[in-house]
Amino acid sequence: MPFSMTPSTDTASWNADDFRFMARALRLAEKGLYTTDPNPRVGCVLVHGNQVVGEGWHQRAGGPHAEIVALRNAGERAKGATAYVTLEPCSHHGRTPPCAGRLIEAGVARVVAAMQDPNPRVAGKGLERLRQAGIEVSRGLLEKEAERLNPGFIKRMRSGLPFVRSKLAMSLDGRTALASGESKWITGEAARCDVHRLRARSSAIVTGIGTVRADDPFLTARLAEATDLEQPARVIVDSRLQAPACARVFRQPGRVLVITTEADAGARQSLTDAGVEILEVEADATGRPAVSAVVRALGRLEFNEVLFEAGATLNGALLAAGVVDEWHVYIAPCILGDQARGLFHLPGLTEMADRPELAISDVRRVGKDMRLILRPSA
Amino acid sequence: MPFSMTPSTDTASWNADDFRFMARALRLAEKGLYTTDPNPRVGCVLVHGNQVVGEGWHQRAGGPHAEIVALRNAGERAKGATAYVTLEPCSHHGRTPPCAGRLIEAGVARVVAAMQDPNPRVAGKGLERLRQAGIEVSRGLLEKEAERLNPGFIKRMRSGLPFVRSKLAMSLDGRTALASGESKWITGEAARCDVHRLRARSSAIVTGIGTVRADDPFLTARLAEATDLEQPARVIVDSRLQAPACARVFRQPGRVLVITTEADAGARQSLTDAGVEILEVEADATGRPAVSAVVRALGRLEFNEVLFEAGATLNGALLAAGVVDEWHVYIAPCILGDQARGLFHLPGLTEMADRPELAISDVRRVGKDMRLILRPSA
Repeated sequence: MPFSMTPSTDTASWNADDFRFMARALRLAEKGLYTTDPNPRVGCVLVHGNQVVGEGWHQRAGGPHAEIVALRNAGERAKGATAYVTLEPCSHHGRTPPCAGRLIEAGVARVVAAMQDPNPRVAGKGLERLRQAGIEVSRGLLEKEAERLNPGFIKRMRSGLPFVRSKLAMSLDGRTALASGESKWITGEAARCDVHRLRARSSAIVTGIGTVRADDPFLTARLAEATDLEQPARVIVDSRLQAPACARVFRQPGRVLVITTEADAGARQSLTDAGVEILEVEADATGRPAVSAVVRALGRLEFNEVLFEAGATLNGALLAAGVVDEWHVYIAPCILGDQARGLFHLPGLTEMADRPELAISDVRRVGKDMRLILRPSA
Repeated sequence: MPFSMTPSTDTASWNADDFRFMARALRLAEKGLYTTDPNPRVGCVLVHGNQVVGEGWHQRAGGPHAEIVALRNAGERAKGATAYVTLEPCSHHGRTPPCAGRLIEAGVARVVAAMQDPNPRVAGKGLERLRQAGIEVSRGLLEKEAERLNPGFIKRMRSGLPFVRSKLAMSLDGRTALASGESKWITGEAARCDVHRLRARSSAIVTGIGTVRADDPFLTARLAEATDLEQPARVIVDSRLQAPACARVFRQPGRVLVITTEADAGARQSLTDAGVEILEVEADATGRPAVSAVVRALGRLEFNEVLFEAGATLNGALLAAGVVDEWHVYIAPCILGDQARGLFHLPGLTEMADRPELAISDVRRVGKDMRLILRPSA
């Protein structure tokens, strides 16, 4: 995780059953991976006399929280039970009534939370309310695992910014396309499926005008295992509003935004007519939308996890600005040669000592290809 | 292995002890990894009544073979013993008398060989001689493991060609140096150590004149764990004999060769004066030594494993010619940008369908870097 973790002050000692039930709650939370936006993925298990009496997970914003589903599921058996929740129960009225109150009403005897609310202004209040009602409370069990479920929600709550990934697909020799622009397909079927899973869990997929013009991509998530997927928003970074209204990216279901530095109302008309939202942000030195401003704007839109799938120019700017939390790099074992197109445009780099350094955090084989996940160097 | 294996006709069923003793013989053979050239790495274990009575490995060409060392070690206890050998005992007089005869004289009762002699003209003759002397003979136990010890010797015996590796070190975005040529150091200490082990096991290290002029490398193997290392030969591919006689590569201990298409005697003089051997081979279409001819020449020199450490031009030619058995690619998690130098010069590649494909055969992390081993796509 790129953010520091709050120290666990309410930690307790847990037994093997506690670990087992919390692990189950984490697996339940994961079921919401593609659907809870802008809410976090949360799971809950209610246990009485070492028997699971209720289970639930949060499925969709506006729908019941994990605790409520589990309480309904348990009915009377919730009385005296232990509730394992992957995130501190809420204590405020949001779109639904607070879960802390519902757990108290149901007569739960003990609550174990994997982590507290990441929003510093409300963190701990839900657990405090439970404690004041005489419920035994602890937190911190499988906390890292719980944080891993919601990197975007947590980062946004703490900083206002989304968790930013950038996906790159390259040949062994670091090329994304031939000089002609031909790029279909460098990676194999398995890697492309993997990217669709990454898209599906993202709140938004972001690309640059160069990619829209060169590849005319759909930028939709297509997953055999999740056919009722709500499509992530598609975001085009387009300084001078050059994206044609007929581009495929504008004609798919779901929200579409263009981020620009162009203020001219006339230029915006054909896009807004096509249902595209337009956001104006400040320019960087090259006149393009400053990537840090782009990322801040995405946070204000309540996007938790955003995925850049862009070309060398935008990726060079992202790298230089240091705004990416995870680089997902797919490497295909083919060679495109030194005439082919590169991965990062970094015009100012002339000294080895100034080269951007990352750190490899995960390596795996995906079909015939490799996937590396890299993070900013510590 | 890039070559097909001879089917095992003398296979037998072995018990757990057989596997254990042969595994020991393989480990002994490995001790010769850096020293047996141009001979193979071979190990031998003599076992009597389930007790090891003698062990040996081949250390240096001209020195005793593994079987002889083990027999000396065992003395009288060799009588009635089982000999586990990683390679079929020789039946011909080479620099030393044939081992098959010595095993017979010592009264060994049984011989288990991991693999037969890879030279098709002598394969099986050593085992046959043992069998005719009334010794129980079997072969094929841990055969693949035995083949892995000697990829170069085996390939050379079967085809006349050495086993060819090419080592590349690149940034995450596939760059070997900045546009200025600055390249020290992309990879970290651990990766560089790994390369020295690869050099140490090689018979020859080959580079191009471009690398000699740009980096003035030593091309020696420097290993803390093997200080008495015999240096691999250093080979420079230098079309027009432009390598300066004062280059570091010419001033290290060990054999140095230049492979050229230049026939002019005058041009050769300063190099031969510096103790450099010169080999003339045929040119390719660009006037450079044809890489297939270079590889054949290296085989005729009895080099088992050769390691190319070259720039984009030579690597592009190696790739196009399909002469490399293993690509060892070190990837450092840094970015050098699209102005920096590429890995492979492939001027003719204009269609994706024509791109060279490889297959990933091994992936591991080496310090902060990654190492991929790739082979020709099946």
